[in-house]
This record gives sequence, structure tokens and C-alpha cells, in this order.
Amino acid sequence: MRSRIPGILGIAYPILQGGMIWVSDAGLAAAVSEAGGLGVIGAGGMPPETVEEEINKARRLTSKPFGVNIPILSPFAEGVFETSARLGVPVLTTSAGNPMTFTARAKEAGMKVVHVVSNVRMARKAQDAGVDVIVAEGYEAGGHNGFDELTTMALVPQVVDAVEVPVVAAGGIADARGMVAAFALGAEGVQLGTRFLASTDSPAHPRYKELILSAGDCATVITGRAFGPVRVLRNKLAEMILQAEREGMPPEKVQEMIGSGRSIKACLEGDLDEGSFMSGQVAGMIRELKSAREIIQELVEGYRRIAAEL
Amino acid sequence: MRSRIPGILGIAYPILQGGMIWVSDAGLAAAVSEAGGLGVIGAGGMPPETVEEEINKARRLTSKPFGVNIPILSPFAEGVFETSARLGVPVLTTSAGNPMTFTARAKEAGMKVVHVVSNVRMARKAQDAGVDVIVAEGYEAGGHNGFDELTTMALVPQVVDAVEVPVVAAGGIADARGMVAAFALGAEGVQLGTRFLASTDSPAHPRYKELILSAGDCATVITGRAFGPVRVLRNKLAEMILQAEREGMPPEKVQEMIGSGRSIKACLEGDLDEGSFMSGQVAGMIRELKSAREIIQELVEGYRRIAAEL
Repeated sequence: MRSRIPGILGIAYPILQGGMIWVSDAGLAAAVSEAGGLGVIGAGGMPPETVEEEINKARRLTSKPFGVNIPILSPFAEGVFETSARLGVPVLTTSAGNPMTFTARAKEAGMKVVHVVSNVRMARKAQDAGVDVIVAEGYEAGGHNGFDELTTMALVPQVVDAVEVPVVAAGGIADARGMVAAFALGAEGVQLGTRFLASTDSPAHPRYKELILSAGDCATVITGRAFGPVRVLRNKLAEMILQAEREGMPPEKVQEMIGSGRSIKACLEGDLDEGSFMSGQVAGMIRELKSAREIIQELVEGYRRIAAEL
Repeated sequence: MRSRIPGILGIAYPILQGGMIWVSDAGLAAAVSEAGGLGVIGAGGMPPETVEEEINKARRLTSKPFGVNIPILSPFAEGVFETSARLGVPVLTTSAGNPMTFTARAKEAGMKVVHVVSNVRMARKAQDAGVDVIVAEGYEAGGHNGFDELTTMALVPQVVDAVEVPVVAAGGIADARGMVAAFALGAEGVQLGTRFLASTDSPAHPRYKELILSAGDCATVITGRAFGPVRVLRNKLAEMILQAEREGMPPEKVQEMIGSGRSIKACLEGDLDEGSFMSGQVAGMIRELKSAREIIQELVEGYRRIAAEL
């Protein structure tokens, strides 16, 4: 695999685990890093004290590099950044906000910076901000999504053509086929979320994992298209939001109806009706739980086999 | 390239040109077929007499196999099918409707049948109907689009896993990078639309081609999401439709506002404000007009180079 990513991030394979609120805790992140990828603690929704505990826990579980993901618009962003920098977290991954916010300070603190984008303009801006790696995330990805709806196939080559820094593809990747496709498009790495969620190392509620395993190809929908698109598995909550949107309910009202705590209901409580079960379109490809190590080994071995067959 | 498609369709390379209303005429189809791909006359909107003329013209321009594309729900579908079968058109490509409608009769007439799908259920149905090749078309594709919004990265592997007949990937492919990616995902061929539209062999209005060449990554939008999604370049007409949709205008009213003849306005008249300029998300990757022959040669040569580098 031709890739600058392992050298930049200090990992064996250019495979990143996406930051997932309440799902990518220290345990999952450490398991991914131990297997040679980049595990990432998803700090979205966590106050700095909790993130500090998770970082310390990850340190006890692995001596390999790992990251902390900060959604820049999160109310805890500044505190989580300061905590991560103070504790010497090797990699900061940022998303959902201006890459200028933390990049310079993170690099001064010796961190590598990975920033997630969903169009070419954002990629150029991230490069200008000095990030080390750009994640180009397509419309098929689970969770928070860009407004421009560029898919991985269309987005990755256009970002690769626009910037010099290495590009990681995210969205639509659950096995080695997707990884080879990403590299063919010009990416130098892949980021997987849903696949690691449905792993034996993730703390997601068993009913959440079961939903992924039993999902078909059309299981996900976009809610909040007008104000903040999120890809989730279709359930009672998702149908309620879509119905309200179809009926023209104003975005503020929809957000009020959604309220807070929907991710906790999904990830920790497994509340099938009331939880927000974020997932990528690849849910339909995931048929069994595997460990993070198996997932990464299958990606690496599958990559070699498929690339040789092309 | 490992592919059953050349053997089935009698072509040199597993590269299909997508049927495009008012754009893929006999001239473009013959140019693609002459270059070793499968050229396809897009019969959408054409009465059988016009299609007969186009078929005869294509015959004069090439002795190689070509296809006729019939959107099954078109009012002319039955007449166009009968004409194509009577004239011994080698390949029928069908889309937007039930694959049972024409497949058996087409095969009795000695035609090969290619059917376009946008989810796994439709792919199984197409296989059951007896089609020879399935085109799995992702959300990033231009023109008429599925309701399920599955992207090429997520759709192709799931369709490949679900059926035995060979699968062609469509949507998001404009160069050899996309072609190699498609094969990595398990496809045995590719279908390109927008790339062939922006070719010196296409009859699209020069202003239409210029729009593609100057498009950025975020140039396209989906209109008619609730009743009949179509991916088009953002212009005055598209903005008007999106605005009406945001304001909750009923689908029938929106369709009434769109009226008919919008494709003719785009393709033949180059009316930048009032035309419906269908295009895939790859418009942003297309920087110059090329001949169909150059496009196909670059795909084939690029495939070998990129596959060797992986």
C-alpha cells in the first residue's frame, strides 16, 4: 500500500477508526490501535473530565498512538482540546467546524491533526490551516453528514486533485473491497465507523449491534436534511422526524422534538424506538460481529488479494 | 480485467455509455461502440419512428454491437421495444420500471438485456426476470435517480453479493480511478454518462458541455426528491424547483411548474436558465472535451496503470 499515513501517524496500517459518540471509548480505540490502526476516542458529548479518564484508560490499554475526536462546534470542544494537548494525545481529529480553531495550537503541542471534510472547499481550507491528514467523508457515511451530499466515489478524487496532504476516504467502506476502491480513487487510507461499531470491542448496546447485523441495504435515512443532516437507521424516531419534515415543521421545532440524549438512548440503553441509531449505508454488508483485530487483519489481507486480482 | 461483460455483449472493453435523453443519439452511440465500448441510443422521449431512424443511422456508422435504452415507464416504451426487436438491435438496456416487462420478449428476439437498478431488491428482481447484465447505479449519478439514495460505494458490493449475473457500476465514474474502484467493489464493468456527454462526439448543446467543464464539486442538486428524484446542475430552474419544494408545494404542482420540454431546452437549445441540465457529481472532475475514443482509451490504459500501482 502506497501511503504516507503510517509514517505521519506512527501506525502500522493506514486504517482509522471514526470518532463515534458514546461508541468509540477508550476500549474500542485501544483495540484498534493495538491491532495496528488508529483508534480514536470520540469526545462528542463528553465533558473534559470524562475525556481525561478515557485518555488515561486508553494509555493503560495500549502504548501505541491513538487519537481524540473533537466536533469543533461541541460546547466542550475547548476544554477537551486543552485536556488532550496537556495529556500529550498523539493525534487530534477534528470535524464539524473551522479547522483553524485548533490546528496551530495542536501542532505546537506536538499533536498530529486529522480533519474531516465533505467538499473541496473545506479540504483546501483544512490544508491552509496546516492539518496533516484530510479525511474526505462521503454521503453514505453514518452520523453527521455534509450538506453537499457528495459521495465517496465523487468526493475522494476531487479532494485528492485539490490538495497535497494525504487523503483518507470515509463513507461506504466496510471491507477490503471498499479499501481497495478508496486507494484506486487516490486515497492513502480509510476510515471506518459502522464496521468498528459492530465489533466485539465496541461498547455499543447489544441491540444496536443487532440492528446493524440485521440491516438491509436501504436501512438508513437522512434526518435533519435542512438544518443538520444525520444518517441513522430507520426506526420510530427517524420516521417521526421525517414525517415532521415532510409536513414542513420548522427546523427549530424539529430539533426541539428530537431533544437531547437520543444517542445515549441508542448506544447505552438500546432503546429501539426512541434512540438515534447512527449508521452508514454499509450496515447491509455487515453480517457478523468481529474483533477490531479481525477487522483490520481482514482489511489488510483482503487488500493484497483484491489488488493482485485487478 | 476480469469480466464476463465483453463476452456477453460482444464488445472489446466492459465500458457502457449510459442512455441520456437527447444526448446519446446514433452519433455518440456509434462512436462509443466503434471505440470498443457499448454505445447506447437513449430512446427516452423519442417516438418509435425517431428511434428507427437513429438505429439505422447507428448501423451506417458502425458494424459493432450497440444498444437502445428504454425507460420502461415511457409512453413510447412498447413501440420503441418492438422497433428495436424488429431491427435486431443487439442490446436492450432498460431502466425505470419492471424488468419483467420486456426481458423475455427481448431474449426471444435474440437481444441481450441490461437492466439498471438502485437497490438490492430490484437487482434480485432483475436477475429473476432473466436479464444478462445488471447496472447498479448510485446516488451520485446524473439524471433520474432511485429513492433509496444508495451510493455506488455502498450499492455495488451489496448487489454483487446478492446476484450471480455480472454487475456494472454506474455513478461517480469519470476516469480510470473510478473504473478501478468499481472493479475493486466487485463490478465487472462501468457505465459512464456525464463523461460521454462532455465529449466531442455528443450532440449536447455547446453551452451544456461548457457547464460541465466549468462545474465544481458541489454543482449538482437533487430535484423532485419526494416524487421523482433527478440530479441536475444547479441553475435558475433547479433553484425554483428546490424553493417550491422547501415551501411545501405539492408534488403535482411542482411537476406542473416543471412542465415538459426542459431536457430539450437544455440539450438542444442550451437555455441556461430554463433547461434541465442533468449531470452526475463527477462534473467537477471533467475539465476538457475528449472524443469517445480518447475517453475509452484513457480508461483502459489508466486501469492497467492504477491496478498495477495498488
